[in-house]
Amino acid sequence: MGMLPVAVDGMGGDRAPSEIVDGARRAVAELGVPVVLVGQPEVLEPLAGDLPIIPASEVIAMDADPGSSVRRMKDSSLVRAAEAVRDGKASAMISAGNTGATMASALLRMGRIKGVSRPAIATPIPVPGHRPTVLLDAGANAECSAELLVQFAQMGTVFARERYGVAEPRVGLLSIGEEPTKGTSLVKETHQLLSASSTLVAAGGRFVGNVEGRDVMTPDVDVVVTDGFTGNIVLKTLEGGMRALVGAILEAFAASAEAKAASDVLLPGLLPLYATLDPDNTGGAMLLGVDGLCLISHGSSSATAVVNAVRVARELHDSGIVEHLRLAVAPT
Amino acid sequence: MGMLPVAVDGMGGDRAPSEIVDGARRAVAELGVPVVLVGQPEVLEPLAGDLPIIPASEVIAMDADPGSSVRRMKDSSLVRAAEAVRDGKASAMISAGNTGATMASALLRMGRIKGVSRPAIATPIPVPGHRPTVLLDAGANAECSAELLVQFAQMGTVFARERYGVAEPRVGLLSIGEEPTKGTSLVKETHQLLSASSTLVAAGGRFVGNVEGRDVMTPDVDVVVTDGFTGNIVLKTLEGGMRALVGAILEAFAASAEAKAASDVLLPGLLPLYATLDPDNTGGAMLLGVDGLCLISHGSSSATAVVNAVRVARELHDSGIVEHLRLAVAPT
Repeated sequence: MGMLPVAVDGMGGDRAPSEIVDGARRAVAELGVPVVLVGQPEVLEPLAGDLPIIPASEVIAMDADPGSSVRRMKDSSLVRAAEAVRDGKASAMISAGNTGATMASALLRMGRIKGVSRPAIATPIPVPGHRPTVLLDAGANAECSAELLVQFAQMGTVFARERYGVAEPRVGLLSIGEEPTKGTSLVKETHQLLSASSTLVAAGGRFVGNVEGRDVMTPDVDVVVTDGFTGNIVLKTLEGGMRALVGAILEAFAASAEAKAASDVLLPGLLPLYATLDPDNTGGAMLLGVDGLCLISHGSSSATAVVNAVRVARELHDSGIVEHLRLAVAPT
Repeated sequence: MGMLPVAVDGMGGDRAPSEIVDGARRAVAELGVPVVLVGQPEVLEPLAGDLPIIPASEVIAMDADPGSSVRRMKDSSLVRAAEAVRDGKASAMISAGNTGATMASALLRMGRIKGVSRPAIATPIPVPGHRPTVLLDAGANAECSAELLVQFAQMGTVFARERYGVAEPRVGLLSIGEEPTKGTSLVKETHQLLSASSTLVAAGGRFVGNVEGRDVMTPDVDVVVTDGFTGNIVLKTLEGGMRALVGAILEAFAASAEAKAASDVLLPGLLPLYATLDPDNTGGAMLLGVDGLCLISHGSSSATAVVNAVRVARELHDSGIVEHLRLAVAPT
């Protein structure tokens, strides 16, 4: 079908390189999607099998300062992966490495889509028994203007439609009450802009007003718009909450031989829920607004997470999402 | 023992008056704490049994605008309850009604503790197998200055010590990364102030740096400080996340006769967890910084929630927390 390969950062993530390369190989075998690894050849070659490698001598550490690392380490796997997309050698880039550096690499090498002020991270929040809610910005921009949030709403609408097939995504503004008068001055101003936004309607979205934290994990909204500080805190809070609850439940399941036997009966029925909540299954977050496809996998991504990210990269590529984003945010 | 009665707003909450009055009566019977109901005599008298009533002819609706309602409805149960504390007729007020109006009533009638810029809501976040984490501000002040957050840290320290017996509470600043350079300009400035804060140390707290959303529901921190917008969103996000997860699990438990039988074996072991997460058991949130005890119960409070709130009011009263707060924030 002539699709360009998906560039997978072989060096990024807590479980790189082995799980990452393993996932890349599985993606080729299971999905038939071409993949190119990016990273240090001496590390990747022994694991890569038949996979091609774009050599990159440097590795940006998980905790390195994003901006300075990307500027300094021009031969890093992240920068080279972003270049491969820019240069038409790859259809998308995927990394489980340093999120900030992934964003900075994509932004510096691919540039922004014309009209986009700042890219935003769109993260799928699992909803049991339903498609995920799209949360953005999940951490790219700690401080935002109302105009920026309106643009996030437009881009999130396109993402929800292309990624999840929602015909007319319901867009909610995260606040601390449903009334337009609730929240910070930023939220109140954004509420007014979104209520009057013809560009959101043009992008295919429908503003449903303010939503609260308790609505995020429900089927009542498709896109939740917020600044990157609040969005990242929501994401991490849910992550911690789920971990605490699941941990406590598993402890109760293992408390006695009787409990263990009973939980064995229940576990098959709980597997779909577990799969819904497993971040390895979401396919990762997408950096919306850069001029190319950039998927961000979570730091502890397994091979399965990489397979799912490659699958999502293929689907998003086939949907032409970058072109749709271009149209949605085109300066009028 | 001569403790003044606890004033319980008999009109506030989704389940008022019956569950509220029932809870008040149970509190007297089970705890031996004197309680006075506040509200419309014609509504409360048929339910109140031997309980005294402070008459109040008006009721502030759950969704009424707090500021204007409190100014306008001077004979409302909330305003009269706050007056009872101010006038030395009650040791504390408790309401499950309109949170904003509860705050406004307490602020207007009791006034602030000297040196307090703005009161904050301290909400206990349940942590399985551990004492709760104190989150503040959980919604009183959507927009905050760094100086305000430092004062919240002081007051949260006093609350964690008096309410949960934590000798030297670990105070974390909610942000989107552990590094002092992460987050909004507000968070960065607050981080610097807290790092250098002798007043926090004087209050008995220890600043442990930035914490993330995933840390809130863990035993790793005792007090989490944030602005009221972010805090309320964290609280509601956890509420929604827990509801989604517990709902999905209960559905799996009921999926078949076999699953039902197995879950019957497991439920006793899960009860402590359920009890930990049940908001009826936390005793409610406390409005810190007003010159008197004001406890805020969640809107759907049952009789049990009222019993627990009265119990907490008694404990906080006995601890002398308002005096401790006074000392902690005294202008130097």
